[in-house]
This record gives sequence, C-alpha cells and structure tokens, in this order.
Amino acid sequence: MVTIKDVAKHVGVSVATVSRVLNETGYVHEDTRRMVEKAIQELNYTPNEVARSLYKRKSKLIGLLLPDITNPYFPQLARGVEDRMQESGFRLIFGNSDESEQKEQDYIQTFVQNNAVGIISSTNFPGMESYRRLNIPVVFLDRISSDRPAVYADGREGGRIAAQQIIKRGSRRIAVLQGPAHIRPAQDRFQGAVEVLQDTGVAYEVIRTASFALTEAEEKAKELFAAFPDTDGVIASNDMAAIAVLHEALRLGKKVPEEVQIIGFDDIPLIGLLSPPLSTIRQPAYDMGYKAAELMIRLIEGQPVEQQNIQMPVEFVERGSTRENPEKRRE
Amino acid sequence: MVTIKDVAKHVGVSVATVSRVLNETGYVHEDTRRMVEKAIQELNYTPNEVARSLYKRKSKLIGLLLPDITNPYFPQLARGVEDRMQESGFRLIFGNSDESEQKEQDYIQTFVQNNAVGIISSTNFPGMESYRRLNIPVVFLDRISSDRPAVYADGREGGRIAAQQIIKRGSRRIAVLQGPAHIRPAQDRFQGAVEVLQDTGVAYEVIRTASFALTEAEEKAKELFAAFPDTDGVIASNDMAAIAVLHEALRLGKKVPEEVQIIGFDDIPLIGLLSPPLSTIRQPAYDMGYKAAELMIRLIEGQPVEQQNIQMPVEFVERGSTRENPEKRRE
Repeated sequence: MVTIKDVAKHVGVSVATVSRVLNETGYVHEDTRRMVEKAIQELNYTPNEVARSLYKRKSKLIGLLLPDITNPYFPQLARGVEDRMQESGFRLIFGNSDESEQKEQDYIQTFVQNNAVGIISSTNFPGMESYRRLNIPVVFLDRISSDRPAVYADGREGGRIAAQQIIKRGSRRIAVLQGPAHIRPAQDRFQGAVEVLQDTGVAYEVIRTASFALTEAEEKAKELFAAFPDTDGVIASNDMAAIAVLHEALRLGKKVPEEVQIIGFDDIPLIGLLSPPLSTIRQPAYDMGYKAAELMIRLIEGQPVEQQNIQMPVEFVERGSTRENPEKRRE
Repeated sequence: MVTIKDVAKHVGVSVATVSRVLNETGYVHEDTRRMVEKAIQELNYTPNEVARSLYKRKSKLIGLLLPDITNPYFPQLARGVEDRMQESGFRLIFGNSDESEQKEQDYIQTFVQNNAVGIISSTNFPGMESYRRLNIPVVFLDRISSDRPAVYADGREGGRIAAQQIIKRGSRRIAVLQGPAHIRPAQDRFQGAVEVLQDTGVAYEVIRTASFALTEAEEKAKELFAAFPDTDGVIASNDMAAIAVLHEALRLGKKVPEEVQIIGFDDIPLIGLLSPPLSTIRQPAYDMGYKAAELMIRLIEGQPVEQQNIQMPVEFVERGSTRENPEKRRE
C-alpha cells in the first residue's frame, strides 16, 4: 500500500506539503503542487478518506433513506440523487425504512456515526426528533416539511387533474384512495382531488390507506368494490395502488375503462405495458432526485440557496385505463 | 454532543475502560461493563464510527455495486443484501455502474477510501485489476468468477428449461437472445438453451446483445423480426429483453403466444400483469442478495466458509406468453 510518506519521498518534499496539496490548505508553490499531483498519479496513491475526514472533519458520504427500493417508484428517485452526487464526487450510504419509525431512526443514527455530511430522506416522519437534533443538512425528497428544504411534486395539482380528467371522461361514482395521512404529498393529492369533486358535486367515497405497500393496496381494493360495488371511477393514491385496483376490478369481471376508469399517480416503469395500460399522473421522479442532490450539495458547500422548497410539475399521462376525452372526440 | 469523557465521568471510570467496553477489547469487570452500557444508554452517547474505525481499523460499511437500480431486477437483489446486512448492523455504500468499467473502478476506489470492510458486486468485469488489488473480501452477486466467492442462479439449467419448455409447447423456429458475452450467468443461460436446441435438432438463430439495457433490447427485438420474420419462439436473455420482444411482436401484429412464444429470465415484478403475462425462468433474486450478504459477513468475521460458490435453483413460471403444455392437456 502506497502511503503519504512514499509520495513525499518520491517528490522530495515533506509529508506536511503533500498533506497541504491533498487538503487544499495553506500555501504550496505551483510547481511543487504539480509534482506532488504527478507523484500521486504515478504511485497510484489513494488517500484514506477516513483519516482525511477526521483531519478535515468532512467526508464525502451522504445518507439516502427511502421507504422501499422494491417499489418501482423509488429506484428512479435514487438514480437521480446518485447521478448528481456522483458528478461532485459524493457517495451514498443507502437504507430502506419500510415506513418504520424505528428503522428510520436507526439509519439516521448510523449515517451520523459514519460521518455523513448530509441526509436526503423520503421520510414518513418529517417531524421526528432525530431530524431536529441533526447538525448536518437534511433535504426531504418527495416529502414536505415547513422547517426543512424539500423537493416534491405538485401533489395538489396532480389530485385536481386526476379528478378533472376522470369526471370529464364520464365517471360519476368515484372512489378516492387516500394515502398515508401523515405524508404531505399524499394528502395534497387527496385534497386536490376532493376539492374538484366537491366543486363539481360528483358523488365520491374515500378509502383510507396507511401505507404505500402493495399488500395493503390489494386489501383496500377488495374493500373498495365490496363496500361500493357501483364505483365507476377510482383515483388511486399511487400506481401500485392503481395496479391493485385494476387487478381486483378485472377479477370481478368489470371492464376497464368501459365500466370503471382508474387513474394512478407516479408513472412507474412498465405500467404502460399493462392491460389495459394505466393512465396516471406523472411525477418527474428522476429529476426530483437530481434536484434534491443539487440542493444538498449547495447546502453542504455553504452556497446561497434561493429556494428551500422546490415544487416540480406533474402531468396527466393518458393511457388505456381511462376512456376517450369526449371534448377531444368532438374536435 | 455527549463524548466518551462524559460517559467515563458519569460512571466514575477511565476513558480507557469505556473504550474497552465499546471495542470489546481487554478485560472489564462485568459490573463495570453493565454500568458503562447503562450510562451509554442514559446519556444517549453514540460513538463516532470514524474514530472507532481508525482505532479498530474496522468500519461497518459494505460497498454494494449494481449495474442499474432502475432495472427492476436489481432492487430485489439490493433488498436481500440490505436486509441481511441490517440484521448484523452493517450499512451499505451503494453505487450503479451502468455497466461501465470506469464507473465501476471509481466506485471500488471510493468504497476502499471510505473504509468499506467488504464489497458485494454484480460486476460486468470480474477479472478487473481493481478487484485483484483489494485486500478486503469481495463477493460477486449474480456473477461467477473462478477465484472469488460468488452467489448466482443456475443459469445453465435455466437455459435448458427455457428451451425444453418452448419446444414442448410447439415452437420450431426459435431465436435465442444471447446476453453480454463477458458475463458468466448470461452465457450459462445461453449455453444451456443451445445445448437443448442442438440435442433436439430444432432450428434456431442467435441474436447477440452487448448489455442488459432496455434501449438495446428494443433495437435487438426489431433486428430479430426483420432478419427472421418466421420466428415462432424467442428465448430472451432476461425479462427486460423479453418485454421488448413482446412489444415488437405485438407491434408487428403477431399473436402471442399463438404465433410467437416468448420466455424471459428473472421474474421481475409486474411482468405477471403484462398482456399477455410473461412466462419466465425465475431467479430467487431477494434470496440471492440475502445469501451474498450472509457469505460476506462470514468472510468479514473470519468464520469458516464451506461453500465459496453458492448456486441457487431456478424454475419455470408458466404464464400467458407460452402456449399450453400439450402433455398436460392429454392427462
């Protein structure tokens, strides 16, 4: 293993000089700096980041916490975060919380113990004490908090669009799946949809769900059609829930979209290949992750941050689980 | 911030004693140990892992390298790894290689710089110099190497089963998608399929692909039907490739499975919901990740490892992209 001493010896300077070059501290003559950098390359010397982080009190590690990477929505967020972080040489310590407060606390603690310089979290518990105690930057991703920087999609507008589209396309007895009550974007979607339903006076029922997990979604889908068998439109809390509803509707022999229209939320991969392909409200997940990483880097580097809360636009993606827009047909 | 000194003062022992308890080194009287542990809890003291790792020369970080987390196969592997690691208090530094040798090298280097105590890698370059130089354990996941511990599925048997099933169900002009030539499990699948095709004397063509990326799979699917329009069965290199083939077949107006049968490999989430649902060879991805983590922990802890190479079983999952088994019909 090549050490800093080997580098110093190779160039004929002191270890302190090599250290100054590595840490970009203090004065080093330009020629000396070049020689040291050349020696580092030639000897293939890789400074020990742990030792450096102790010296500089800074690592290049960022904690990333997501609910569950096997939900196809989250890998997109993770890729966005990672790609931006990689551009600036940061690395991710990664964990899944499974929407459990205990797991989330454990991860935050170990992020700190491993000297993470920032945490990006799709938390289910934004008000948790563990976040308040941190003295490193935190960015919430796909979540909203009044006292923390955050990157999220415009859930309320998404909910409004979903309701407008499903009404316009003819649903009159609508079920709205309400996502976890303590997660702001999920509630914003719900509120947006309900606003439009109330304004237009269309009948609707609410099905409450506690998590985004597929198993719960399957139960709720069964409950939905058992309690309200004449439902002719479903606004789902996310695509996984929409898939569960689609499956249950088909299992009951209902025609989608002729008898029941379904709109999801997220636009996860492969839903365009389902039968029928799922109409949904698209969130720009990759871009959200990328922006969150960008915001985090600015915070770490102490750069001015104009916008603490970045709200990204959503859009309706028309596929086969909704009927044709009659206004369009007339054109 | 509570320090080790505060803990020592609280109990009335020396810092060295607290350190011995923390690091499980040297003799500490049982009563003293209990008092120290109680104080650590009461004061909510979290030892700095970086300082500890410098002292003990050990961190609890494991590097995990996957090709691309947005390919739905890999989150399952990642979850398996993480869940097992979490049980033993290890954390993951995570990166996507995008099947690029340069990115893979960069990640390995930074894993080492951050004092990772082991690396689990779904490498595309198992022979790479960077792995040979490491003096920490490496476990290859979903990959095979002659000189490294590895966890992978029985690709050859998978390929054999795919060919047997597609022939048994009536395909006679078969196209085999050959995955990346430098990845052993992909080649094993291919070899297994070709073995059976040759043994049974069924006509087949080979389409070579360089990566597992969906964009390439889409091109190859177009090439396939352009070059061999009378193909009546496709053995795909993985599910993403099978989805691309399915889409292209349907686009060309071919009936699946009546005119073309398609078998994938992996059994990623949601393919059972496609139209038609995709028949495939299932790999136990979550279990593979879990086993790889288990193997890694044994290596880190210096425990005896009976099996350096763990081969997991595969199975045929019958869905709608293959026709009924005529043998079954007769029963």
